[in-house]
Amino acid sequence: MVALWSQGRIIMNDIKAKWIAADWGTTHMRAWAIGEEDNVLAFRESNEGMKDLQQNEFEPVLLRLIESWLDEAKVTTVMACGMVGAKQGWVETPYLKTPCVPIDNNQLTTANTLDTRIRVHLVPGVMQNDPADIMRGEETQIAGFINIKHDFKGVVCLPGTHAKWVNINEGQISNFKTFMTGELFGVISNHTLIRHSTSIKGWNQNSFEEGVHEGFNNPGLIASNLFSLRAESIVNNLDRDQARSSLSGLLLGVELNGAQSYWKDSNVTLIGSELLSNNYQLGLKILGGQSELFSLETATLSGLSSSYRGLISG
Amino acid sequence: MVALWSQGRIIMNDIKAKWIAADWGTTHMRAWAIGEEDNVLAFRESNEGMKDLQQNEFEPVLLRLIESWLDEAKVTTVMACGMVGAKQGWVETPYLKTPCVPIDNNQLTTANTLDTRIRVHLVPGVMQNDPADIMRGEETQIAGFINIKHDFKGVVCLPGTHAKWVNINEGQISNFKTFMTGELFGVISNHTLIRHSTSIKGWNQNSFEEGVHEGFNNPGLIASNLFSLRAESIVNNLDRDQARSSLSGLLLGVELNGAQSYWKDSNVTLIGSELLSNNYQLGLKILGGQSELFSLETATLSGLSSSYRGLISG
Repeated sequence: MVALWSQGRIIMNDIKAKWIAADWGTTHMRAWAIGEEDNVLAFRESNEGMKDLQQNEFEPVLLRLIESWLDEAKVTTVMACGMVGAKQGWVETPYLKTPCVPIDNNQLTTANTLDTRIRVHLVPGVMQNDPADIMRGEETQIAGFINIKHDFKGVVCLPGTHAKWVNINEGQISNFKTFMTGELFGVISNHTLIRHSTSIKGWNQNSFEEGVHEGFNNPGLIASNLFSLRAESIVNNLDRDQARSSLSGLLLGVELNGAQSYWKDSNVTLIGSELLSNNYQLGLKILGGQSELFSLETATLSGLSSSYRGLISG
Repeated sequence: MVALWSQGRIIMNDIKAKWIAADWGTTHMRAWAIGEEDNVLAFRESNEGMKDLQQNEFEPVLLRLIESWLDEAKVTTVMACGMVGAKQGWVETPYLKTPCVPIDNNQLTTANTLDTRIRVHLVPGVMQNDPADIMRGEETQIAGFINIKHDFKGVVCLPGTHAKWVNINEGQISNFKTFMTGELFGVISNHTLIRHSTSIKGWNQNSFEEGVHEGFNNPGLIASNLFSLRAESIVNNLDRDQARSSLSGLLLGVELNGAQSYWKDSNVTLIGSELLSNNYQLGLKILGGQSELFSLETATLSGLSSSYRGLISG
């Protein structure tokens, strides 16, 4: 056995997966080889997200990532969640409707594959009729979280490009609300005049915190406060890291104003990337809210794992 | 004399201008040939805006537009305003600082030109220290408006990519606030997932009005209400014209929430393109505000004209 250090994990190059977990989103694909004890044997990722793939390209992309994990003697199950199940994805999986359990194993969709060594099951997204809302991928993380915190009743927030605030009760998603704050941060940073005033990566804690307060207190001024970042950089030479952090804080503050009903009386569980979850936790703390973090990877794998176990026992 | 119909005006091809007015913004350049009676003899425009030009390209672009209006026997004055005077423009003109008159003829900047038939004067922009804010071009329209409404005291709003709300008193700009609502509308329409759900041009009055109310009442929900447009189109087949009009209404409603101190107790004068000014007027009316329209072209020409007259009499 040869151990290779890759992606922060030890990869064995003769690993054979019992089954494979895949989180296939708009911009990224992540795959895990899972062993007999539900343990992670290996992890690989690719930036071949759903948005860049034609329908017939999903299978080859998947195989390129996972082929070495396949045991030629058997069919390996792949459990996949995320935008891969959208209309523009591999196979469209119909949404579950709230209120609902996050994953219903009777509603999985199977992708047609040419390669007989794999069987690919897609987890459906969840939709809400009124007000209209949709998620794909987060339902799996919610399922995984509930799987571990069985009697959880309360609010989960999943920060991301499209942050989800979710009310959970008796194992079900009662209702949820999406804020496209992350996507706004991206287009404002990259496509408006503010791009001339912000850094790509830098950070200033004070500017972030002031932004959260201002965004929360005066959400109606957001289009003015954004322009101020540009004006401050011209008039007062505002530092680019400060501008970027203010932008992040302002947009989060506006979201936390709109999402008050979710967090004012709850201890929110944050499930997202470490960076974003830390920002949300700090933002909430500044405004008097309480939160705790739950690992995104744990949630995803626990969700896909419970679905896999339901499938083979069913 | 041969009369040509162009740009909605009768153009005489042997017109000679007494002086020339130019409004040179980020994306467009507009030039007017002005006659002895301060009357408009001709108009031309180009999409060669400041953002697409290097410093040495401004003079050739200007000459291409206005050369036929020049009298070879004399030097013709060109009065220009807008982003042409920005750091990235032709010549940087230092800002006036609020409180200030909108145009101070002692602060004009003269561009160096190779062609001796023209003398080009640039009108400075106006800045505000605290809170930091800037304008270039709108000061000329404000000067032109005050020129016609001598004793005006109150609020002027100039809708546009970067809308300006301006307090005017005793012929001066007391203070102002910029909202980059128009630029946000552009990037959200063109660069976020909402682009899949909106039309390019269509309009639905009801959706606009509902959007104004919702944006005004719940500015903190803006990132959620924007995502809802996408979700509504997936879940409930929201019409694309409705989505576009809702987007416009939502963003304007948020601005009108933030700009309340400017319009709650004032009859606002709107100076902008007809389309945008009509939207602002309707938005204000829906929320109980009062406004009247003032012609953008009249304001621009009146402003440049007063500066020209000050120059030749000075």
